[in-house]
Amino acid sequence: MKNLLADKIYRMTGADALVVTQDDFRFYLTNFESSFGVVVVDAECAKFYTDNRYLEAAKNFCADGFEVLEYPRGTSLSQLLKGYKSIALSLLKTPAADYISLKEAGYEITDSTSAFERCMAVKAEYELKNIRAACAAADSAFCELLPGIKEGMSENDVAALLEYLMRRHGASGTSFATICAFGANSSVPHHETGNAKLKFGDIVLIDFGCKVGGYCSDCTRTFLFGDDKKHGEFKTAYDRVLEAHMLVKRQLRAGMTGRQGDAVARDLLAKYGLDKYFTHSLGHGIGVNIHEYPTLSPKGEGVLENGMVFSDEPGVYFEGEFGIRIEDTVTLKDGKVISLTDSDKSLIIL
Amino acid sequence: MKNLLADKIYRMTGADALVVTQDDFRFYLTNFESSFGVVVVDAECAKFYTDNRYLEAAKNFCADGFEVLEYPRGTSLSQLLKGYKSIALSLLKTPAADYISLKEAGYEITDSTSAFERCMAVKAEYELKNIRAACAAADSAFCELLPGIKEGMSENDVAALLEYLMRRHGASGTSFATICAFGANSSVPHHETGNAKLKFGDIVLIDFGCKVGGYCSDCTRTFLFGDDKKHGEFKTAYDRVLEAHMLVKRQLRAGMTGRQGDAVARDLLAKYGLDKYFTHSLGHGIGVNIHEYPTLSPKGEGVLENGMVFSDEPGVYFEGEFGIRIEDTVTLKDGKVISLTDSDKSLIIL
Repeated sequence: MKNLLADKIYRMTGADALVVTQDDFRFYLTNFESSFGVVVVDAECAKFYTDNRYLEAAKNFCADGFEVLEYPRGTSLSQLLKGYKSIALSLLKTPAADYISLKEAGYEITDSTSAFERCMAVKAEYELKNIRAACAAADSAFCELLPGIKEGMSENDVAALLEYLMRRHGASGTSFATICAFGANSSVPHHETGNAKLKFGDIVLIDFGCKVGGYCSDCTRTFLFGDDKKHGEFKTAYDRVLEAHMLVKRQLRAGMTGRQGDAVARDLLAKYGLDKYFTHSLGHGIGVNIHEYPTLSPKGEGVLENGMVFSDEPGVYFEGEFGIRIEDTVTLKDGKVISLTDSDKSLIIL
Repeated sequence: MKNLLADKIYRMTGADALVVTQDDFRFYLTNFESSFGVVVVDAECAKFYTDNRYLEAAKNFCADGFEVLEYPRGTSLSQLLKGYKSIALSLLKTPAADYISLKEAGYEITDSTSAFERCMAVKAEYELKNIRAACAAADSAFCELLPGIKEGMSENDVAALLEYLMRRHGASGTSFATICAFGANSSVPHHETGNAKLKFGDIVLIDFGCKVGGYCSDCTRTFLFGDDKKHGEFKTAYDRVLEAHMLVKRQLRAGMTGRQGDAVARDLLAKYGLDKYFTHSLGHGIGVNIHEYPTLSPKGEGVLENGMVFSDEPGVYFEGEFGIRIEDTVTLKDGKVISLTDSDKSLIIL
């Protein structure tokens, strides 16, 4: 039996067999979530070995073209692969211990990482469908969240409510730990959501995402909980971050590198003297994992292609004062940017 | 500067430097959650390198005895470690690519995995405090969940509500994807929570856990949503699984191996002819990770010690009919078992 995707990556590696042990790449090929399994692909067929916890379900729900088998108990990986001379593994994902034992058993080993990264970056229709659903669940949940935000709630309370609403809208869980930051906490890009209590006039920054069918969404909104009229600087900066965010959506094109994409936002913020406060990258690929290839940063040399999904997330951070980040998950279609998360980005004042 | 725990593990490895790149072991040492960082421990001091996203917070919240430094940009791991001859890494956790580049740079490499596993298995007081809090949050959430379960809710709805309640009780998130299974779905030990709707007379199995302060809880309850009087076999099996669960709590002692602990439950179920339906292990260590050393299974040769935290989770599964699992997170103190999750285990009929 052959699985087209597995066969494609197998051919890219040039090895006798493609071997996948880690969860994320295995899910990408099999479209079946499991905490244990080994995929072995050669010129003849694609096999998915798993244990009896998953065997029945895998036979029913694994992607077409895989032979689903029980992993033979007491068999080492190198015994399982007997007969092959060269093996392609992801050296970035495979533990050193597995590499060492295969090497000692005499296998030639090549790296499959870039083959996976390149294939995973350009989404198939069923992948886009899942990502769209994850984005829609996040959007709907955020809209329902807003009227539920009340003075005195903690960052944890707001995150808990938002996660609940994402799940009610069809998510299987979060794609990363929700960041909810009130007031000056918003100036820490990776603030750890805590027990700070919401008060009138607070800036609220929420970075949130969920999973549907194993695929992620990623979105950030920054808004005001009441306007105490002390936020002139914040409002000006907000408009400029939003201008950068929207400029990326208008100007970014398939064929640009990640560096060029990042520069669209960075150059605009530089005009306002805000680039030194934009302390992270413009974006990252999104798919099975929340951070994937490509990178949209000053170092991103990968070319952006139709079908890729990534974040557009300019942000500025004034230590101890406030931070602003405006992020959507987007994709490239017919050369241009389409937004997949798309709740309102004009400044909300609750 | 020296950190006692890091120094202890460093000494166990016998290398010139202990190097930690992966998230879980790094969190264990630094008690600081981050998605990027490198810990380097030698005879003189313990250093924690991270990037500017985490630097300020790490300086404030990292465990005592670490020098917190910005990871020097553009520096490879092997350049960072210049001057050492031998390095201890976890070969189970470190990617093959890092191992290969360090090996090529001429470092002698030893494996730190078992030193970490042994230290992490026996919990310090502050670790037990976090685990107790995670267990208490799970218990309270489960008690609040029960009156909220209504006919027509989906497995996803029930899981979403339970996760929300755990967060409201102080959890930062789940420790694994909540398993909620109605009716015959309960016969699949790792059922993927889905859209099945709850109806009168259904068996409900929920396997759930949350995190507090970076530490996990793990608990499973099986109960009836109304009694349609067709559940004689289920009730008999329930009593026997509960008997096995409780016998473990009474008879398991520090000094036994994981295999001997597992046998307490397995031998009792065998008397009832149920052992062939007990298709998994009795338990697993719980801490920073939801599955850790030791293993309580027919293959578990590790000795159970005071201060270890693990699950007591016998279960039986009748394919296509029903499954039962009764699980608590427990610890060993003064040689005996103490239950950390402890909501009611007598058969609940809602």
